[in-house]
Amino acid sequence: MRTLLLHCAWVLGVAGIALRGGPSVADEPPPTARSALNVVFLLADDLGWGDLSCYGNRRFRTPHLDRLAAEGTLFTHYYQAGSVCSPSRAALMTGKYPAELRIHGHLATPQQNAQRDMPNHLDPAVPTLARLLRQAGYKTIHIGKWHLGRPNDAPQGLSLYGFDVARWIDCQEGDRNLWGIQERPQASRELIDAAIAEIEAHRSGPFYCQVWFNDPHAPLAPSPEQMATFRRQTPEGFTSPFMVYAATVVEMDRQIGRLMQKLKELGLEDRTIIVFSSDNGPEDIDIGNAAWSAYGSAGPLRGRKRSLYEGGIRVPLIVRGPTVPAGRVDDRSVICGVDFLPTVCELAGWEIPAEVREGIRGQSMAAAWRGEETPRFQPLFWEWRFRIFNHPWNRSPLLAVRDGDWKLLLNPDQSRVELYDIRQDPGEQNNLADRHPEITARLAEKAITWQKTLPPGLVEESAGKNDYPWPGR
Amino acid sequence: MRTLLLHCAWVLGVAGIALRGGPSVADEPPPTARSALNVVFLLADDLGWGDLSCYGNRRFRTPHLDRLAAEGTLFTHYYQAGSVCSPSRAALMTGKYPAELRIHGHLATPQQNAQRDMPNHLDPAVPTLARLLRQAGYKTIHIGKWHLGRPNDAPQGLSLYGFDVARWIDCQEGDRNLWGIQERPQASRELIDAAIAEIEAHRSGPFYCQVWFNDPHAPLAPSPEQMATFRRQTPEGFTSPFMVYAATVVEMDRQIGRLMQKLKELGLEDRTIIVFSSDNGPEDIDIGNAAWSAYGSAGPLRGRKRSLYEGGIRVPLIVRGPTVPAGRVDDRSVICGVDFLPTVCELAGWEIPAEVREGIRGQSMAAAWRGEETPRFQPLFWEWRFRIFNHPWNRSPLLAVRDGDWKLLLNPDQSRVELYDIRQDPGEQNNLADRHPEITARLAEKAITWQKTLPPGLVEESAGKNDYPWPGR
Repeated sequence: MRTLLLHCAWVLGVAGIALRGGPSVADEPPPTARSALNVVFLLADDLGWGDLSCYGNRRFRTPHLDRLAAEGTLFTHYYQAGSVCSPSRAALMTGKYPAELRIHGHLATPQQNAQRDMPNHLDPAVPTLARLLRQAGYKTIHIGKWHLGRPNDAPQGLSLYGFDVARWIDCQEGDRNLWGIQERPQASRELIDAAIAEIEAHRSGPFYCQVWFNDPHAPLAPSPEQMATFRRQTPEGFTSPFMVYAATVVEMDRQIGRLMQKLKELGLEDRTIIVFSSDNGPEDIDIGNAAWSAYGSAGPLRGRKRSLYEGGIRVPLIVRGPTVPAGRVDDRSVICGVDFLPTVCELAGWEIPAEVREGIRGQSMAAAWRGEETPRFQPLFWEWRFRIFNHPWNRSPLLAVRDGDWKLLLNPDQSRVELYDIRQDPGEQNNLADRHPEITARLAEKAITWQKTLPPGLVEESAGKNDYPWPGR
Repeated sequence: MRTLLLHCAWVLGVAGIALRGGPSVADEPPPTARSALNVVFLLADDLGWGDLSCYGNRRFRTPHLDRLAAEGTLFTHYYQAGSVCSPSRAALMTGKYPAELRIHGHLATPQQNAQRDMPNHLDPAVPTLARLLRQAGYKTIHIGKWHLGRPNDAPQGLSLYGFDVARWIDCQEGDRNLWGIQERPQASRELIDAAIAEIEAHRSGPFYCQVWFNDPHAPLAPSPEQMATFRRQTPEGFTSPFMVYAATVVEMDRQIGRLMQKLKELGLEDRTIIVFSSDNGPEDIDIGNAAWSAYGSAGPLRGRKRSLYEGGIRVPLIVRGPTVPAGRVDDRSVICGVDFLPTVCELAGWEIPAEVREGIRGQSMAAAWRGEETPRFQPLFWEWRFRIFNHPWNRSPLLAVRDGDWKLLLNPDQSRVELYDIRQDPGEQNNLADRHPEITARLAEKAITWQKTLPPGLVEESAGKNDYPWPGR
């Protein structure tokens, strides 16, 4: 009953804002926004589609995220717009394809960025979700890994990008660095501590709080206590990726449980939407700093981080809140990271100004979050210009497009063309390109047309290839 | 020149024996056999097709086996007749399909064997390669892992199976056990020490000496010194499967190099054929005792140990000797473990008695070992009745047949039917069953007809399935 009342209050509040429209110029939040829903956005780092037990993981359990899913809706066709950290995050923050922003790979050193024709940071001139929500009267909070850079001359913090509060930016604060081997076991705890503190401070709301974990991104170093449950047959003196990875994910899950409990204690549960996702697929064991930890799973999907096959870009999405049906699995809606900005703006009752709307590639999927059938208006596109590791099976072509149930992967020179019926064949095992030449041609044209709109730049020699150094060849 | 002379002597010797034919009943070896080639058969345990640098491994190097390949012939289409230890070994020793012998999986405890309708040991009544070679006047030597059991009332040793000498049977000798964590780093060294001692003792020849390593089968525990080179970014207190596995394989390779050097010093190089292979594909990281080590690679092939996809059954085969072309990659010949017995008998110049020949499913590939084009006369068959682990992509149907360039995998109830052009598509990515219904039907009939000849027995519930616990289903 309480939920229903709050829900009604929220709907009325939204309606008020929506009618008013446009950004507020006042310093104070518009009073109508005070009843708007809070949003907590939890983003794991390199967690695979199959890593939560509610997504089919039978190797270890994630009870708190399972409960979040049981109390909310779990989406099976959710994608990020990138196959590594920075591109995915850029899309979440801007609603644009990361390649438009020249964020083709992870932001690294200025030299490495220049070499790959990438900027050193997300262009602060590009409108962000946080800026829009701040205009809508939200207190905007960022905690944890950012990985979108910031101008050298910018003050500490992420206010340029619309955040009122920014803590543990890229997991560093003061002298402390949660990437360090010593600090690593406490990383999720520290970030959740900060989140709880900020949420308590801004409990009157509305607030948008994103907690971007560095777990379970490599390098990982859980404590012996965290690993003990998962040691099993592994002898002293050795550690297994299973024990390292499971300990880390289960610790992150435990901390998320602590945050859920806190929201309940604060009486915020009924006016807060919690969103959980990951930025890309699981890391590969051939990456040096993941050699002892890369046990993440993409479930039945093909490929891992960096790959444009499903396992690289398709990740968990769990949404729980007063407007979200409980205990539902949405196996229908196709949602992408570029949708996050318009979706959250709709939930916040904030009409995106037309000049901003034009640059956004996603669409609001707020109706899907409410349990309504929500068709997509445009195909989704991906690109990857660099090396992909390990088994040839993992190494995708350079471009991908999903349109309805079809997904096409191809190299622009047509050296590889693969068409999959993703709904029937989520593992991308049956290439139907030969059988459906007209669909293949149509999607290939769309992908190549899209690619032509993107900034040019370095394409690594091995990108898009899946060759193997066969003996004697 | 010396090679040529010895080669001629060997050919004459062979001819003499071949004309004489049939088994010798004398206790002493037939004098004609004294000039016959020695055979050293090195069998790694769970080493993948892609684990040697000469097979494309770019993650660590195996210089001694690379040299063996450079001085001999490397085969790319070599299969074992089983996808795990005992079945593969049974076929190597008998030339029969392991399922005929009811050796469907690995031999375990009597209870586990009974549950799976398996015997506790290879039936000693079945003719073995060692028995035939002993009849041919060879000194027959087994060293290391056997995993084919032996009757409880049999004396120590493997004389029932035709071996004059057996050392470190199943890697145990006296109080020592090379499977123990403490002994594990020395396992390959100990086996090679024993091999060198036995070869020195029987250097006058001819001898057949099989060294069946337990490396790199789990559980692995290389020493810190062995792992040091491969630690790289892995922090103290953690170990990576890469460092554990690479250290083990490189140590095995080093010990094989020591044996090669010894054969040279003993002047045996020019009258000894060395054969190197593995019993099945690389182990899976979801197996408890391999959780910290399962880094093995099947190269570009699909699947791992237990799977009937190529990665489970296709393994390295390197042959070096006076009759074997050097520096050759044989990308053409399709060879299987069931061929080993007739091949070695031909090389030994020993005509297999007709009543034994009847029961052998393989064919001599000695001509292929000499570099000659050698067609197969019969298709090859595989079966697997039990669970397969990890990614659905790895989990094959219950039956497989290879006939020419075609490989069909299917469940007898036709719930899964997959046809691959293995030469074009070694990664088994393009299922052509729909496109070639007549080939599919022909091979399916062959496989099912073959299966009907096999002893019935337990088929595990999950066998042949590749399902995934999809959310909400």
